[in-house]
Amino acid sequence: MNEFEIIRRYFERPSRDPDVLVGVGDDAAVLATRGRVAVTVDTLLEGVHFLASAPPDSIGHRALAVSLSDIAAMGARPRWATLALTLPGADPAWLEAFAAGFFALADRYGLTLVGGNLTRGPLSITVEVTGDFADDDTPMMRAGGTSGDDIYVTGWLGDAAAGLEWLTKSGHDLQIAPTEGADSTVAPLIERYLRPEPRVEAGRALARHATAAIDVSDGLVSDLAHLCRASACGAIVDVEMLPLSPALEANFGAEDALRLALSGGDDYELCFTAPPDAANAVAQALERSRTSGRPIGRLTGRTGEGIGIVWRRGGEPFAPRAGYMHFR
Amino acid sequence: MNEFEIIRRYFERPSRDPDVLVGVGDDAAVLATRGRVAVTVDTLLEGVHFLASAPPDSIGHRALAVSLSDIAAMGARPRWATLALTLPGADPAWLEAFAAGFFALADRYGLTLVGGNLTRGPLSITVEVTGDFADDDTPMMRAGGTSGDDIYVTGWLGDAAAGLEWLTKSGHDLQIAPTEGADSTVAPLIERYLRPEPRVEAGRALARHATAAIDVSDGLVSDLAHLCRASACGAIVDVEMLPLSPALEANFGAEDALRLALSGGDDYELCFTAPPDAANAVAQALERSRTSGRPIGRLTGRTGEGIGIVWRRGGEPFAPRAGYMHFR
Repeated sequence: MNEFEIIRRYFERPSRDPDVLVGVGDDAAVLATRGRVAVTVDTLLEGVHFLASAPPDSIGHRALAVSLSDIAAMGARPRWATLALTLPGADPAWLEAFAAGFFALADRYGLTLVGGNLTRGPLSITVEVTGDFADDDTPMMRAGGTSGDDIYVTGWLGDAAAGLEWLTKSGHDLQIAPTEGADSTVAPLIERYLRPEPRVEAGRALARHATAAIDVSDGLVSDLAHLCRASACGAIVDVEMLPLSPALEANFGAEDALRLALSGGDDYELCFTAPPDAANAVAQALERSRTSGRPIGRLTGRTGEGIGIVWRRGGEPFAPRAGYMHFR
Repeated sequence: MNEFEIIRRYFERPSRDPDVLVGVGDDAAVLATRGRVAVTVDTLLEGVHFLASAPPDSIGHRALAVSLSDIAAMGARPRWATLALTLPGADPAWLEAFAAGFFALADRYGLTLVGGNLTRGPLSITVEVTGDFADDDTPMMRAGGTSGDDIYVTGWLGDAAAGLEWLTKSGHDLQIAPTEGADSTVAPLIERYLRPEPRVEAGRALARHATAAIDVSDGLVSDLAHLCRASACGAIVDVEMLPLSPALEANFGAEDALRLALSGGDDYELCFTAPPDAANAVAQALERSRTSGRPIGRLTGRTGEGIGIVWRRGGEPFAPRAGYMHFR
């Protein structure tokens, strides 16, 4: 197979989106837009963003999910994607499974793959997603939170990092049996790592109520710091309020569960802020999108130097570790 | 420097584009659009798309130029870019020069970098460019050509491939002295390879007159075949009509010049079609955009199986080599 055959066989599908005026196969895609678009790009590398042994369908899912999560954090509706794929070789089984994982997630959100690029080299996957907004929706930015706003997170924190830690420590070969040998309570943690669920519905539902938002991709400690810096606020967070799953607590104990929930990445939950008088509206938006979520603290005035996030546990100061960095 | 510092120092610049509602530094960029956008993505790898010894400013230029060329081939106006950069390390001198080359080209077209991604790994650069259209412009597609249309190319073909061939054969270290030891007639060939000029103005000027278009990135033989296949046409091309630069002919001789013009890639000229009665309008559009261009043949009805491009030289059949493929 040459690159044109690979694209035709695995990545060119008839579009059902009337706004895709020109799709895969021309010099560029042409899309009909409505006023505003949100654009985000993410690269996934083997060994950095996914395990070499990860099932290829989970890699396809994950490559799209991380960008969908950014779209969700803006309160936008995902519409179109491009895929820049660098492959060491053309393995039909790998390509088929990768495409299946990618398109299964794309189909759930009515997203169309409109273009891409295929090159031979070390495995690398770059996905760009373009979303749009309902007419009266306001994009959620990292800036916008103000002192006194409640800080919320959706879902459970730490599960994905726990799944990764279990896989790494057990030396599990995912290609043979994703969860064989794993306790039934570990399997959901592994699944959360392999196939994160972007909070697209919640993001759209929250767009009218949240003052600021970010997706939790590098860990709450890092990502809340970004939100605070952009909003020029400090924060007080009660770590005992962090949403921990029964599976996480059962398998990792209180201390490790807290560490993973604070500093582990890959959860792709949303962290957002809203004024106290929007609490009911927020609860309704979460319920409408069938997403759990809870307040974990509040934004404060900027306290002296730095971003000034005060972490507390049982009323006492608490010092979490920082999140993952590519360069130091 | 961690990745956030690298982004702030080298890639975050104040935007002068009022349509950039949210730029670098949030979960996604938010852009104000007008009806239709063109989207294209390209990946450049060291050793495949540029030489390991290439000056980093030329890599920055080239990474953007290849996507601008796709935008040009659609007749669109480049507006915004994202940059997904995978780097083996954080070398300030490299980053500064790379960013300088990227932004120098971006500034010439009023293009704004609105987002990106930075990861540590084998050097890889993925640029996505989003363009838009004037209200009454029609996107130029690969499909759209009809039997009897003239086939044109802009500029000169083969120069970039000639520059690359000279560099490869001479084992020249570009980081020391880009064109030292090169004859003054070789220097422009090397420059064409290192810093290709996307035909943005020509593409926009031609959008109202051309029936089909493609950019010549893999070599005319490959790229004209794509246009013919999409337009369901055959073609007759007189290879003696191919535009060859004096520098190419002086340094490579007639046979090699022809081979490079037909099968060499990286020229980023436009190949387009227009009906004979549009010849004056095409000539004026080219002149308005200060771009040379000439007819090299014409589209024919589909002749039997395959795409049926007939290459002729002095009236005799001629068999050119195919272009570059990543996978075979």
